Amino acid sequence: MTENVGNVGTVETKYYTFGNSPKELTLESGEKREPITLAYETYGKLNQKKSNAILVLHALSGDAHAAGLHKGDKRPGWWDTMIGSEKALDTEKYFVVCSNVLGGCKGSTGPSSTNPKTGKPYGTKFPIITIQDMVSAQRRLIDHLGIDKLLTVIGGSMGGMQVLQWMIYYPDRIGSAIPIATTMKHSPQQIAFNEVGRQAIMADHNWNNGDYYGRSAPDRGLAVARMVGHITYMSDVSMAEKFGRRLKNHGRPFKFGTDFEVEGYLRYRSDNFVKRFDANSYLYITKAIDYFNILNGKKLSKIFKDLKAKVLVLAFKSDWLYPAYQSREIVKACKLAGVDTTYCEINSTYGHDAFLLEIKEETHLIKHFLRTVSNG
Amino acid sequence: MTENVGNVGTVETKYYTFGNSPKELTLESGEKREPITLAYETYGKLNQKKSNAILVLHALSGDAHAAGLHKGDKRPGWWDTMIGSEKALDTEKYFVVCSNVLGGCKGSTGPSSTNPKTGKPYGTKFPIITIQDMVSAQRRLIDHLGIDKLLTVIGGSMGGMQVLQWMIYYPDRIGSAIPIATTMKHSPQQIAFNEVGRQAIMADHNWNNGDYYGRSAPDRGLAVARMVGHITYMSDVSMAEKFGRRLKNHGRPFKFGTDFEVEGYLRYRSDNFVKRFDANSYLYITKAIDYFNILNGKKLSKIFKDLKAKVLVLAFKSDWLYPAYQSREIVKACKLAGVDTTYCEINSTYGHDAFLLEIKEETHLIKHFLRTVSNG
Repeated sequence: MTENVGNVGTVETKYYTFGNSPKELTLESGEKREPITLAYETYGKLNQKKSNAILVLHALSGDAHAAGLHKGDKRPGWWDTMIGSEKALDTEKYFVVCSNVLGGCKGSTGPSSTNPKTGKPYGTKFPIITIQDMVSAQRRLIDHLGIDKLLTVIGGSMGGMQVLQWMIYYPDRIGSAIPIATTMKHSPQQIAFNEVGRQAIMADHNWNNGDYYGRSAPDRGLAVARMVGHITYMSDVSMAEKFGRRLKNHGRPFKFGTDFEVEGYLRYRSDNFVKRFDANSYLYITKAIDYFNILNGKKLSKIFKDLKAKVLVLAFKSDWLYPAYQSREIVKACKLAGVDTTYCEINSTYGHDAFLLEIKEETHLIKHFLRTVSNG
Repeated sequence: MTENVGNVGTVETKYYTFGNSPKELTLESGEKREPITLAYETYGKLNQKKSNAILVLHALSGDAHAAGLHKGDKRPGWWDTMIGSEKALDTEKYFVVCSNVLGGCKGSTGPSSTNPKTGKPYGTKFPIITIQDMVSAQRRLIDHLGIDKLLTVIGGSMGGMQVLQWMIYYPDRIGSAIPIATTMKHSPQQIAFNEVGRQAIMADHNWNNGDYYGRSAPDRGLAVARMVGHITYMSDVSMAEKFGRRLKNHGRPFKFGTDFEVEGYLRYRSDNFVKRFDANSYLYITKAIDYFNILNGKKLSKIFKDLKAKVLVLAFKSDWLYPAYQSREIVKACKLAGVDTTYCEINSTYGHDAFLLEIKEETHLIKHFLRTVSNG
């Protein structure tokens, strides 16, 4: 496998800025924002008919760098296992696009961006954004790339929410859709986990009501938020397999230090996370996720009524953050609307993280699905 | 039911201090501590044979005040629904004792107690304690009350761990045991949730390495820890039933304020918690829970080999913090040791909180069990 790592080669993040009215973006909140920049990357080549484009949508902590290597880096993009030559999203055949979401902190306009009106970072002056706003901005990028119809939109977790939003908001712009390990609406338990993360950030006295740019950031609060996240991304079984009750330091336990390997793992992962992520973006993006509710009182049969695209819904048995029953609800809504839908519940012990780890199974299913879509 | 609230009447917390060697307590860590005080309450009357005593063991955030009303208070003790005249632990028949654990903050010696050597609160100078240490201290109290053999020991969650420790450590001092919604060893997922709580407390700059008595306490960190706890005490289903996606404030959402009812609930409950609980006690007690592992490399059949007591193990179907499979392991260990064991998995949507809420079912099962034990 290792020889396939980063086989799309060295990649660069590009930027698309749209600003002048009437190109400004009206957010779901009613606020207007310009200019808006989206950071994005592309892999493979757009064919002459512009019919081979795939839009990859990232999860809470993802970014535009989905595959390949940045110059000088050794770690490939976050879904490199799925994007490249002969991989699930085969860059010999497809033109793959991934953009950092609106509200993010990796090149797209977000709370850490400079507010042109003040010359300072927005901080909590940034408007509330929604999954719909993220997708509206993505559509501008797709327009800009000259793509009329995407072959497919694909993503897991929050990426899956964006997929669902594309299915509802721009049904004519997609040939197919692959929502993975996601939900049509955030449940109170899911909201509660996000809220704990937000409270941890806002409890950090460095947060300073979101005004911390240029000084100490609320790293400890963000680290706690990330730790909560990590627990929910794994499963009871995967944690037991990975760590057991093994102690990190032998001999006498050190008071409130790192006793157990699982503690060391959480600290290590969250320490890395705070180096690359902005706490305010975490607040805004988790809020967008919590507001997500495409049902919102509508009849289940009406949700996808305008959709002609084929749909592949994937879920994982041990995922307790986005349990499979939520994916089965998506399937039900699709079927009631007469949408050509395939559902697969993959056996995995990895929990929610499975969408990043069960590569063999996903590759098999997605390759087959894309073959039927391309032929259809 | 309301007429039965607090039917043991007005109660007072009592204190038992044991200090002079050889009465000092050697902790599992090897450290010796004296004096040690345990706060405790009793309900009902000890019979002449001293054969009707029940020891109730509390969970992480509990205390000695399990039933009845403190003078001037309107809220009864934490398990008042289970303790009183004609209740599961019928105070017409039984003498019920409940003590605050060693390391606690409600009258028993803990990190907020005064260190006699310095005249200041211990803070993190307090030694690491274990479930075994808690039980050792309880045994001194039981000796002090002149009770040779307890009719039963009963508790849920961390209370259940203490029950298991009694079963191993003092098998001859108990006639029966009722571990509820508990485990023989803390799993990495359970450790991880506790670790997030500890990290949240230690991230609060008011924590000040545990030295905060007499000034601002790490309330925000403790509140975040409690929020994580609350999510794990409920279930996906119970949260959906209790809150749905209802908004707390109508109209436009207020940025990072309380949008959803579930957020309001978590904030309200955690704000109340910090008024009554000490952050350092939270650190010490969660560590004691995480260290808990009565298996510890032993053969399953050897764990309860000395036990003659009858055992009733209770678990709840929707409890995902202490899943039923962990209770079934207890049952297996008991059965392998030839212990007379009854197991019941109660249907409930309340999650881990069920041990405080499924009163009717628990009352039925426990009353019946105690009848067979009393007759046996």
